[in-house]
Amino acid sequence: MSDTISSIPTGVDSSNPPDFPAFTARTLAQLRRQTPLVQAITNSVVTNFTANALLALGTAPAMVDIPAEAGVFARLASGLLINLGTPTPSQVEAALEAAAAAHETGTPWVLDPVAVGVLPVRTALARQLLAFEPAVVRGNASEIIAVAGGGGGGRGVDATDSVAQAEQTAIALALRTGGVVAVSGPVDFITDGHTQVRVANGTPLLTQVTGGGCALGGVMAACAALAATPAERLATTVAAVAIYTIAAERAAAQARGPGSFAVRFIDELASLSAHEVLTQARIEVAAT
Amino acid sequence: MSDTISSIPTGVDSSNPPDFPAFTARTLAQLRRQTPLVQAITNSVVTNFTANALLALGTAPAMVDIPAEAGVFARLASGLLINLGTPTPSQVEAALEAAAAAHETGTPWVLDPVAVGVLPVRTALARQLLAFEPAVVRGNASEIIAVAGGGGGGRGVDATDSVAQAEQTAIALALRTGGVVAVSGPVDFITDGHTQVRVANGTPLLTQVTGGGCALGGVMAACAALAATPAERLATTVAAVAIYTIAAERAAAQARGPGSFAVRFIDELASLSAHEVLTQARIEVAAT
Amino acid sequence: MSDTISSIPTGVDSSNPPDFPAFTARTLAQLRRQTPLVQAITNSVVTNFTANALLALGTAPAMVDIPAEAGVFARLASGLLINLGTPTPSQVEAALEAAAAAHETGTPWVLDPVAVGVLPVRTALARQLLAFEPAVVRGNASEIIAVAGGGGGGRGVDATDSVAQAEQTAIALALRTGGVVAVSGPVDFITDGHTQVRVANGTPLLTQVTGGGCALGGVMAACAALAATPAERLATTVAAVAIYTIAAERAAAQARGPGSFAVRFIDELASLSAHEVLTQARIEVAAT
Repeated sequence: MSDTISSIPTGVDSSNPPDFPAFTARTLAQLRRQTPLVQAITNSVVTNFTANALLALGTAPAMVDIPAEAGVFARLASGLLINLGTPTPSQVEAALEAAAAAHETGTPWVLDPVAVGVLPVRTALARQLLAFEPAVVRGNASEIIAVAGGGGGGRGVDATDSVAQAEQTAIALALRTGGVVAVSGPVDFITDGHTQVRVANGTPLLTQVTGGGCALGGVMAACAALAATPAERLATTVAAVAIYTIAAERAAAQARGPGSFAVRFIDELASLSAHEVLTQARIEVAAT
Repeated sequence: MSDTISSIPTGVDSSNPPDFPAFTARTLAQLRRQTPLVQAITNSVVTNFTANALLALGTAPAMVDIPAEAGVFARLASGLLINLGTPTPSQVEAALEAAAAAHETGTPWVLDPVAVGVLPVRTALARQLLAFEPAVVRGNASEIIAVAGGGGGGRGVDATDSVAQAEQTAIALALRTGGVVAVSGPVDFITDGHTQVRVANGTPLLTQVTGGGCALGGVMAACAALAATPAERLATTVAAVAIYTIAAERAAAQARGPGSFAVRFIDELASLSAHEVLTQARIEVAAT
Repeated sequence: MSDTISSIPTGVDSSNPPDFPAFTARTLAQLRRQTPLVQAITNSVVTNFTANALLALGTAPAMVDIPAEAGVFARLASGLLINLGTPTPSQVEAALEAAAAAHETGTPWVLDPVAVGVLPVRTALARQLLAFEPAVVRGNASEIIAVAGGGGGGRGVDATDSVAQAEQTAIALALRTGGVVAVSGPVDFITDGHTQVRVANGTPLLTQVTGGGCALGGVMAACAALAATPAERLATTVAAVAIYTIAAERAAAQARGPGSFAVRFIDELASLSAHEVLTQARIEVAAT
């Protein structure tokens, strides 16, 4: 990952082709200026890290995951994350309520189907939630294959399939939900079914800190909240991945190990500049 | 906040006016010597940070928030925090049980009505809990207004009202509960209905780390446990705010961003000295 | 704790006496090479820290604690931790399901009876869980005495008994469960009922960070997963304690306080070398 992949600003909308690095830099500025209110229904292991990552970026996270509150809040929130990492009975109810409310009011929401495929409660829930048309589905290759109905899932929370193996499934899933699908891996793959984008930034240390993937789902929800139109959500999702993985790369360069990496990563999310985004982004685009 | 507000030791009890900075320094020493047992029923986002802040100060935190255990433990604990950030059905039951037990046995307890006003479950619960006479109610301006029955709450967990707008409500609420009310903001406002105290220490970084406010509720419960009489709880609450915000100021001076701030803050809570409290406290007092 | 206790490789199995420091160094290498899948049903305060400690050691943690999933996963996992720190109704059900599945399939599992004795829900649960023959029971002295049916437990999560007071109980409990019992303290005591091992590594800072003991339970489950035979679990448990406490000692030497200690500790778990284990281990062995 040491070579810079040249940024090829190919259009999502052919009449207005986005320059992804520039779009990412603008999205970063907008996050800090608009402080979108991001509701997170997420797993008990990563709530703290997710909230701190979102705060560092200047957004306003709120972990409202209680039945009879989650739906109310989804109508007020700018964006919503539903992460299935630890789906307690109370969270399952809250997730269904929030997804329905978000669907009704048009609040963009992100589905992160953690460990789907292996485990029955979350697998059934993930498939039920797809009906509420998530703006983004994000996961590792095994999770994306499993949520789409294929495969048996990975090994716990780890993928046993490569990103390449999940690409066709991701494209088909995006066409089915009408949203974006993002597959995480050494190079992340993001598609709306029509355009494929690869982001090569990142560091293996993100996989050595719990929540390294989960918090990205929150950032995707924050960025989706800034999209002027649903069509712009491919670009906001790419922006979320780029902001997150560039900050991670910068933190890794200064870390002694996963403990100091996590601390430095939060600092980098708070201080990341447009210049750093423009010079470090490694984004590649291709039409399907 | 760079000017030092002179400390005016006006009396809570006119026959024995406390010198708040000196009282704060003594309270800090007592926390470390007596290691009060602090029960915390708090939200899933901040349990870890709250426990670490309390441990750093030398107290013994215990997150006992299970029905059939919470009430038992509230009879043994030195102080109790009930924070409504993520009120699962199980926590709601535990909170009612613990507050009732604390009320019966005289264990001082702190109510932190996170996001009350906007969200129905916690709003109903907060008003029900007030009947158990919390020693301290702490929140941002919007939360204090909402828990007292006015306003519509803030924006998620953020205040949309200023501290000044909440002062009269805070005084009235303190007179109603017979306890102390603390409104957090750039300058914190603390009252028992008779005396008003403002603490000007702090740093905006506390609002950029999740649990920056919530953990303070735990420290208030620890300090309340040291009060010789209920009348002394205005002073212990001021001490909690001063200890916490002075440590935060010191941490901020050495931080690169919110990640390193949170780490340094825990270190500063553990190493804070009486001398630092006496020289850095910016506390202002006025009778109503 | 500054003197090195000489390592006396007395045999668990007299025909094949283990050299504990060498065994520990080999276990550390195996953890990184085999990445055992460790299921953790643990308390809400320490999930994040536990997952990060396990990731730093190269294992694959998964916090699967939902009824209808916990049992399924216990059949797939290499090792399982059940920690009773915050036993919600949902976790109680999940714990029973997982322990039964682990018992049936032979997945080694660790019971950490946090605050048992004082609190009724977890005390009843702990005694029920013993029937599923945990490979390891770990706790402080008061918890070990209480789980075995004696004493009234400690003060919240803190021990009120010394390690020495719990040794006979620990030996009897190990003979009863057929597993290993580990008592944490300034010098940890580990026994399978036949051999007694003391590990003198560690730092008081481990008691000033929440999860300092709980995460060790996860590491014990990871190491137990590597045992070739049940008889080797005394040695894998000693290895877990030694790896964990040597990393902690190294972190303490470079920390300013509990905040920076926790960060450095994760870094040290990730970088700990065989050489450091062999030169720093302070392990003492005696037959009963």
